[in-house]
Amino acid sequence: MLINNEEWRTIWFNEEKEIVEVIDQTKLPHEFSIKQIKDSNQAAEAIKNMIIRGAPLIGVMGAYGLMLGMKEDPSDINLKATFDKLLSTRPTAVNLHWSLKRVYQKVIKFSQDKRYFEANKEALEIKQEDINMCSSIGDNGLKVIQEILKKRKNVDKKKPLNILTHCNAGWLATVDWGTALAPIYKAHRSGINLHVWVDETRPRNQGASLTAYELKNEGIAHTVIADNAGGHLMQHQLVDLVIVGSDRTTSSGDVCNKIGTYLKALAAHENNIPFYAALPFSTLDWEICDGVKEITIEARSENEVTHISGLNSTGKIESVQLVPEGCKAFNPGFDVTPNRFVTGLITERGICKANKIDIKKLYED
Amino acid sequence: MLINNEEWRTIWFNEEKEIVEVIDQTKLPHEFSIKQIKDSNQAAEAIKNMIIRGAPLIGVMGAYGLMLGMKEDPSDINLKATFDKLLSTRPTAVNLHWSLKRVYQKVIKFSQDKRYFEANKEALEIKQEDINMCSSIGDNGLKVIQEILKKRKNVDKKKPLNILTHCNAGWLATVDWGTALAPIYKAHRSGINLHVWVDETRPRNQGASLTAYELKNEGIAHTVIADNAGGHLMQHQLVDLVIVGSDRTTSSGDVCNKIGTYLKALAAHENNIPFYAALPFSTLDWEICDGVKEITIEARSENEVTHISGLNSTGKIESVQLVPEGCKAFNPGFDVTPNRFVTGLITERGICKANKIDIKKLYED
Repeated sequence: MLINNEEWRTIWFNEEKEIVEVIDQTKLPHEFSIKQIKDSNQAAEAIKNMIIRGAPLIGVMGAYGLMLGMKEDPSDINLKATFDKLLSTRPTAVNLHWSLKRVYQKVIKFSQDKRYFEANKEALEIKQEDINMCSSIGDNGLKVIQEILKKRKNVDKKKPLNILTHCNAGWLATVDWGTALAPIYKAHRSGINLHVWVDETRPRNQGASLTAYELKNEGIAHTVIADNAGGHLMQHQLVDLVIVGSDRTTSSGDVCNKIGTYLKALAAHENNIPFYAALPFSTLDWEICDGVKEITIEARSENEVTHISGLNSTGKIESVQLVPEGCKAFNPGFDVTPNRFVTGLITERGICKANKIDIKKLYED
Repeated sequence: MLINNEEWRTIWFNEEKEIVEVIDQTKLPHEFSIKQIKDSNQAAEAIKNMIIRGAPLIGVMGAYGLMLGMKEDPSDINLKATFDKLLSTRPTAVNLHWSLKRVYQKVIKFSQDKRYFEANKEALEIKQEDINMCSSIGDNGLKVIQEILKKRKNVDKKKPLNILTHCNAGWLATVDWGTALAPIYKAHRSGINLHVWVDETRPRNQGASLTAYELKNEGIAHTVIADNAGGHLMQHQLVDLVIVGSDRTTSSGDVCNKIGTYLKALAAHENNIPFYAALPFSTLDWEICDGVKEITIEARSENEVTHISGLNSTGKIESVQLVPEGCKAFNPGFDVTPNRFVTGLITERGICKANKIDIKKLYED
């Protein structure tokens, strides 16, 4: 997608230097810079330090990390050690485990001299699949948007369609297109008049920083709001549609996503506003049904609540403390929106209602 | 209430120097300092620059400001001019208008040489009434807390009662005790085992700064959370009661309060958690009934969303920018919680359900 009117992806293989390059996301939206990932240790660090983030992108980084490991030493021992090293950066990330396993199982079958090359091919394939998948999510989500536009009263037809989103499920969390933002990009590129309400998404502010940055660069009208404001906007018919991402979706359609999603779903339900989650196949967890009971929510660092980073008056990125000295905070990273508040799921295979039967139909294989 | 183990109020008349003194709230929670208000211009500035804030406290500051005006020049012309000057600092603040009018109508009846003295007496009376009113709100709210404790299962009796609050409706918004926090203070002082979830309350973070500061100084267990987290906590039975303040309450019990209150009310309703608004008589607006339709919500400065202040690493209070350069924000200051989501109102006259008939019964005069 666009940054300063050039097309970018979040990650790519530099064939000339035989290294991986990524957009350094720790400095966004204030600074745009490219980070070179020269070996598997740097790949592990990039995941750990959130140089890159977002489940799909972490998966692709993992695949490339294992490839770099095969460049360093293609032995069985190092293959296993690199796999473990990369997995340990985010032990609960389902996508990372999946992509590492996929590269591992591919290259183990080859002799050591072919492993780097085969890992490269497999990583490239995983990357391309992610792009295609997000593009399909966008195409399917576009249909949801078109349906809503069709039902609009004539008097509203010239007004922009107001979409609210939470956190960053944009292209910066994937390789390209994104998940929740993909339908917005497809709609914008097809000429639909849109405006996006961007939840700032405390505590890490991925909305105010990354989503706002993406939309600005794509030239899509948007306004950042405090997470507290969404209910009020919905109450006053200023939101036509909510689209969020999903980190994990149960077999019955309960949506686990960034903390605060549940509150927006309640407000959307109360005000009869369609609420969709956009997600790839890989986030569906068939083993679990009741998300509230069965998903353990990660408690993240207190520091994310007690401190915040931004650009100071001298143009430097600085962290400031928001609470009284010694104050405790609690920081659950995600919450679960029960399926009764979810109008539907937008996936690469199509759109379905958030219930067991309809999800199964879409994924009959 | 306590700051560093000493009893303080937010505002007082210094008889020796014949000036007004206040706690400077712009520097809290990072710095505690006293600001001297020596004349009516400084009183107006203190309201405008939020040296003091909170509807009840602004009202008392207005009364003292008019008193300082009478010290400067007790003429009819200056009485009117000072009234106008003070009112213009916050033209929509109902409480400020009410207290200014009260002092005005009192002193206009007296000869000029008595006006300063009479204004002083009236301001003192307004101040004392505010203290008594908040104390009564606390006593009545204590009964709500005691009722909830009575209904608890035996197995839960040793656990602290978890109360969630939004924004700062504490003693720093009044002269003493506060409104939403008054029941918490009364409960704590009567030996009830409490823990308070403090919503940080973006964009101005009055929860993370002022409420956390108050509770810390009173020695009440508390934890700051992002505004996004409350729904998740309620879903997991980690909240027993929600108490918020109210800036304006309609005759039918719709509660207009700090932006984000509505979202918490929806989550409390969904999870069968009692949701109370604590408010003085003066915030009831008998002229309006449907808060969502009839209350115009003030859009505050974009800067409050795009920037945030905190303590930097060198111990200075600094503002940092959170969004990409040039990014727009929208900042509605309040929202309306319809009465069907409000379990009850805690007032200085007692507790009532949030509906026309029950509110009227409590205020039959």
